Amino acid sequence: MSIVVQKWNELAEVKAELAARDWFFATSGNLSIKVTNDPLTFLVTASGKDKRKQTDEDFLLVDAAGRPAEQTHVKPSAETLLHTKIYGQTNAGCVLHVHTVDNNIISDVYAQNGEAVFSGQEIIKAFGIWEENAEVRIPIIDNDADIPTLAAEFAKHVDGDTGAVLIHNHGITVWGRDAFEAKKHLEAWEFLFSWQVKRLLLQRAAVPLAD
Amino acid sequence: MSIVVQKWNELAEVKAELAARDWFFATSGNLSIKVTNDPLTFLVTASGKDKRKQTDEDFLLVDAAGRPAEQTHVKPSAETLLHTKIYGQTNAGCVLHVHTVDNNIISDVYAQNGEAVFSGQEIIKAFGIWEENAEVRIPIIDNDADIPTLAAEFAKHVDGDTGAVLIHNHGITVWGRDAFEAKKHLEAWEFLFSWQVKRLLLQRAAVPLAD
Amino acid sequence: MSIVVQKWNELAEVKAELAARDWFFATSGNLSIKVTNDPLTFLVTASGKDKRKQTDEDFLLVDAAGRPAEQTHVKPSAETLLHTKIYGQTNAGCVLHVHTVDNNIISDVYAQNGEAVFSGQEIIKAFGIWEENAEVRIPIIDNDADIPTLAAEFAKHVDGDTGAVLIHNHGITVWGRDAFEAKKHLEAWEFLFSWQVKRLLLQRAAVPLAD
Amino acid sequence: MSIVVQKWNELAEVKAELAARDWFFATSGNLSIKVTNDPLTFLVTASGKDKRKQTDEDFLLVDAAGRPAEQTHVKPSAETLLHTKIYGQTNAGCVLHVHTVDNNIISDVYAQNGEAVFSGQEIIKAFGIWEENAEVRIPIIDNDADIPTLAAEFAKHVDGDTGAVLIHNHGITVWGRDAFEAKKHLEAWEFLFSWQVKRLLLQRAAVPLAD
Repeated sequence: MSIVVQKWNELAEVKAELAARDWFFATSGNLSIKVTNDPLTFLVTASGKDKRKQTDEDFLLVDAAGRPAEQTHVKPSAETLLHTKIYGQTNAGCVLHVHTVDNNIISDVYAQNGEAVFSGQEIIKAFGIWEENAEVRIPIIDNDADIPTLAAEFAKHVDGDTGAVLIHNHGITVWGRDAFEAKKHLEAWEFLFSWQVKRLLLQRAAVPLAD
Repeated sequence: MSIVVQKWNELAEVKAELAARDWFFATSGNLSIKVTNDPLTFLVTASGKDKRKQTDEDFLLVDAAGRPAEQTHVKPSAETLLHTKIYGQTNAGCVLHVHTVDNNIISDVYAQNGEAVFSGQEIIKAFGIWEENAEVRIPIIDNDADIPTLAAEFAKHVDGDTGAVLIHNHGITVWGRDAFEAKKHLEAWEFLFSWQVKRLLLQRAAVPLAD
Repeated sequence: MSIVVQKWNELAEVKAELAARDWFFATSGNLSIKVTNDPLTFLVTASGKDKRKQTDEDFLLVDAAGRPAEQTHVKPSAETLLHTKIYGQTNAGCVLHVHTVDNNIISDVYAQNGEAVFSGQEIIKAFGIWEENAEVRIPIIDNDADIPTLAAEFAKHVDGDTGAVLIHNHGITVWGRDAFEAKKHLEAWEFLFSWQVKRLLLQRAAVPLAD
Repeated sequence: MSIVVQKWNELAEVKAELAARDWFFATSGNLSIKVTNDPLTFLVTASGKDKRKQTDEDFLLVDAAGRPAEQTHVKPSAETLLHTKIYGQTNAGCVLHVHTVDNNIISDVYAQNGEAVFSGQEIIKAFGIWEENAEVRIPIIDNDADIPTLAAEFAKHVDGDTGAVLIHNHGITVWGRDAFEAKKHLEAWEFLFSWQVKRLLLQRAAVPLAD
């Protein structure tokens, strides 16, 4: 099987799973998976599609600059530029960007800190961190309607083969060495966000929450 | 394929997707799709059906006044009159009306303002608005058990090929140039409503939410 | 097709729909559908089954007193006695009893009033009530571990072919002339409960909710 | 059919049901089912798999000490040691461990009490307790990154063929005589947790909740 077909199917499976959770409201979100290293090419979601459906035009192959690498009449997602930063600066193999109510809430509650910090949660082991009382941090950057400006700011926080960034009121972008790792980390972050939102609601209720 | 069959299938697909989200509790909600322009005809949901099921009587063809355009023993949805206002005053191709807990809550919290206003949310791009800090507004009108009275008030807020109105404690009505656009906008509004309900709950909790 | 088979299939379909909403946690809940009037027989859920699964032993036929009307090694649900009260006192054709977090919360918040009252909600039309500002009331009775005692108290509130009762911290029982009506009313009540729980949470937040 | 195949299928079915509720975020959770008594062997989830998928490597057979009982290239779940304590000390036939937001919240709110106590809820009958006003208690133990330390503390609370323990910010572990019972109890606990979280949120709202 061609590597492009294999990667297409892998990304389609991730898309279907995230769509089943309704994480692509109003055609939001975008996904990509690396196909070749030299030259760098990756499959990225076409712009403006309903990601709950599966079609032959869901993805297109693009080059290191995010330009179509083949003849096609579909356009790459408007935010493909952020994906190019990740593939250009790291060895990541997959990038997932989704909007959820809870990731938007967390991005807003902690916007002034420039990051959200979580600790004391077993699910943190999903990040491969096994120490007692480990902390995980996710940077929160300002949103910007100008994609090049946003991508430049975003790129400053891209420095490992796996990682994640929250964009203020604009969802989370997670990357990993492969689709499995990217999805695992995405799920771990979303669990932490939902947990923290409920904790914030309850802390007001003056129950004795730890920390 | 006949245009009626094509439009029937298109509307059936939207109905199935919204039913999967459980947006038709207790047979609530109604949907329609335009079939012909001259004379104006559209398919609209039959009254009182369980919209989680798919049957041969889910929709019926009606004319510009909302009267059956063919022999049928099913009745058009009681609120078909609101759909006729949209097709009569705009070039909309599809109308979706659903009840959710969150759209009812928002319609109540902001009833006195006569509208709900949202800004600072990336999902607003789903409305085709790309400016920095864009605001979107949805009018909120009083509910009325008398459908002609309700339709007359509703008609005052129908002035574009895409749009949306909240009826107080009675759900949202969204229209678009086609089913794809109407559903995309519906999802964007519901995301904004759920986000704002959680923000209201948290603001009370005195966390530093951006305005 | 035998009437028993037809009614079995009808009840199985309702069971599957409610199970899809996860309304039968921990084997809770019970359902029944009337099969014959003279003598009175009805199909009722067998005791202790996982209602997310579909098997040949999901239901059994019982008589007016709730005793098996055929040879069987399964037992009727422990609360079949409540169903016999409904079929004995009304012309109802179907009875649905489910536990949800929200119906338990509402049964507790308003327990001291002996009823919960809802108004100003369009979904109330699902009960066939079309007046402006209609009110609907659901009685709330004390729970009792002794089923005959519970059934006796329950029977006092059974006086129409459609109706509903909340048992304190023990779920809702809804009945209707047929399965369609019973399910429609159940969905309308659950929508009202979820709406009211969110309103209670927000009222504390001092947002200007209409009464 | 071989007993191993039969038990494999039984555990696979439970895994699929819990996965459908999204109770395995980020590859969290682990499950097991006893296969033979003498010598003791059980099937346990392989480490690090995405439990929303079904594969031929989802489980592996292990012995009383949690070591692979057959040649295999997959590893048992890191927390298999906790399962060995249950099978070693009781006649349990199935063990389920899942992370949910609500079980984490409850484990935190009541951590200082060393247990969470529930009463006045009909769903408690799922535990086979039929008395009026029955109470159920679930111990809450400290989490520990060192699995042998955690397992030793855990083992102190394992003293019946059915039971459950909450690990602070690390999910619930439930066991039962068979998969059916373990799943029923797990669902009952999760219902109680979700109910209690909503009660805590509302109690702050000063509504007259029964104690």
